[in-house]
Amino acid sequence: MKEAYTKLMKGLLELIVLTLLNTKPMHGYEIISSLRKTFGVYFGPSTIYPLLNKLEKSGYATSAWNTDTDRPKKIYTLTPKGMELLTLTKDSLNLILRKIGKTETLVVGEPVFQRIRS
Amino acid sequence: MKEAYTKLMKGLLELIVLTLLNTKPMHGYEIISSLRKTFGVYFGPSTIYPLLNKLEKSGYATSAWNTDTDRPKKIYTLTPKGMELLTLTKDSLNLILRKIGKTETLVVGEPVFQRIRS
Repeated sequence: MKEAYTKLMKGLLELIVLTLLNTKPMHGYEIISSLRKTFGVYFGPSTIYPLLNKLEKSGYATSAWNTDTDRPKKIYTLTPKGMELLTLTKDSLNLILRKIGKTETLVVGEPVFQRIRS
Repeated sequence: MKEAYTKLMKGLLELIVLTLLNTKPMHGYEIISSLRKTFGVYFGPSTIYPLLNKLEKSGYATSAWNTDTDRPKKIYTLTPKGMELLTLTKDSLNLILRKIGKTETLVVGEPVFQRIRS
């Protein structure tokens, strides 16, 4: 289970990080610990920081330094464009899930993701 | 939409190929055209063949040559271990979707993947 789970987490990581940033602005380490706490998987700085950089460069997030703490922290905030990407990504995932369900239906007679749908 | 969709397809490709093989044994090209036809995304031989090889090496699929046709084709069949992986992967995906929903709930008050569930 663990391996399949981790592989999927990797494949869905951008969606998950967008979802986390949509709850509130966060700094990198906060995202790393949210992922570990909520999803039980550790993704290190070498995975999360480049992803945050990429989101910022593409205009999906902005960053600002919080200097109130002992060590300055770069806080990432989702932009309207980022929220749009989150919506598009969720819509895409829903579409893929429906298609997977349909594929399966051809043979077994009931949708795969029935439990999610019902 | 297209970019987010294709990225998710990549992340879910193993699950999707397992789902396809669970409908019937298939050769590589059949999988490529099923993906294009059902999901509207083209994944070439350089993506699909290594994935099939990896599934076979790990015992999730077996292969046999079909020599009835003009050109022999390697047919892949899901093994019981492969069906188990498919179940584990679906369970993992459901778990992640629930956790994403929960994360979102903390702020917006309703689950993200509501449309799938309802």
